[in-house]
Amino acid sequence: MARTSGIIVIGNEILSGKTQDENALFLVRELRDLGVDVRKIAVIPDELDLIAHEVREFSKAYDYVFTTGGVGPTHDDLTMDGIALAFDQKIIRHDELESILRHYYSDELIDGNLRMADVPDGARLVGGGGIWFPVIAVENVFIFPGVPEILQRKFNRIKELFRDKPYHLREVFLLADEGQIARILHDLLGEFPDLMLGSYPYVDNPVYSIKLTLESKEPEYLDRALDKLLGRLSEIRLVPVKV
Amino acid sequence: MARTSGIIVIGNEILSGKTQDENALFLVRELRDLGVDVRKIAVIPDELDLIAHEVREFSKAYDYVFTTGGVGPTHDDLTMDGIALAFDQKIIRHDELESILRHYYSDELIDGNLRMADVPDGARLVGGGGIWFPVIAVENVFIFPGVPEILQRKFNRIKELFRDKPYHLREVFLLADEGQIARILHDLLGEFPDLMLGSYPYVDNPVYSIKLTLESKEPEYLDRALDKLLGRLSEIRLVPVKV
Repeated sequence: MARTSGIIVIGNEILSGKTQDENALFLVRELRDLGVDVRKIAVIPDELDLIAHEVREFSKAYDYVFTTGGVGPTHDDLTMDGIALAFDQKIIRHDELESILRHYYSDELIDGNLRMADVPDGARLVGGGGIWFPVIAVENVFIFPGVPEILQRKFNRIKELFRDKPYHLREVFLLADEGQIARILHDLLGEFPDLMLGSYPYVDNPVYSIKLTLESKEPEYLDRALDKLLGRLSEIRLVPVKV
Repeated sequence: MARTSGIIVIGNEILSGKTQDENALFLVRELRDLGVDVRKIAVIPDELDLIAHEVREFSKAYDYVFTTGGVGPTHDDLTMDGIALAFDQKIIRHDELESILRHYYSDELIDGNLRMADVPDGARLVGGGGIWFPVIAVENVFIFPGVPEILQRKFNRIKELFRDKPYHLREVFLLADEGQIARILHDLLGEFPDLMLGSYPYVDNPVYSIKLTLESKEPEYLDRALDKLLGRLSEIRLVPVKV
């Protein structure tokens, strides 16, 4: 079984359409590449109870949880408080984070900056060392900022922690109507129940109208399923455009 | 109070990073423009129980629910079944939808195509008439396909159903550190508790490092809050770059 994960995107600006989220797409692609199954993405507002509720649910349901956004010194940065509430922890000022911040801001430090050192009790620092601010983790929850450039840099530093057996993918493109092949796909899954099989229609594309995706962590199983599928497709009058 | 809504994006292809979802972004922008508050977006797999669970939760929590994806004739199209399960309804073959499909496919109709006429008992057809396939709604849930071109066409046909009092937005751009203004923002919300106030940091931008967004459905209230904010910002040494 693949390790599972969930992504919680925290931010009113996404829900009001002011900002296009890039972080969930980055994370799903990276996690898939690492062999980790993303089971759910939730986009929620900057509200304490909603953050706590979602973090609690995700933490129970998945091996890893990634949050993005809501870390910073202003009133709408409630992720740390929400995660603390989710795990019934207090917020404490973290000594190591405080000294990193004092070093970074030096003479220009003001109280507001130190809010970045306030984290749930029991928080761990991951992937620090040399680089100025580590990733903060609480239980199985890894906390990332909303700014895509920073999130990506931080994720890249710790991603090897999550690497698992890779997924293998095969694609079949067809010029057909989904109704014509529904039965074949249904039968294929009867024979290969562990196959991840997707069927996606395309409109207004002259070359193909359906993309089928076959996936598995077991390449031999995958290729047996693919052979079976191509055999069945050849029995009906379809054009497998490209494999 | 604004009408509330939630968006459920259904599809393994989004969670595995194979497809970039465009539908949630389209819908949040349209709904915001219509004056409707989007409270949550969930992206979930093509799995019956998960769809039913999410639809049930969203339907209770929000005035309107929009689902995208998982409608079609193949094994991974489980949205109708999931919605039926959420409301303890059976799937029935809908006479009017069947006749639309029979007319559309004519001599080329095969059984698989008619699965598109199988909907939860009690489903309503919205925004039909002249155009070949209406939007299907069950209770407060509006069901859209995953193909963005079709979703957009369908949404545009029915969007006036949702129009509400509009939101008004003011933006302030600053070259500052969020820590410097956190107190001011906190105080502003104390005085204007109904203000929607966002503070967003930008990295590596030479012109501004923070965007503040102020929103309300009451333009006078909004402008009073804006005046107050600009007054307070002028007391400290910041550069309000643009209003």
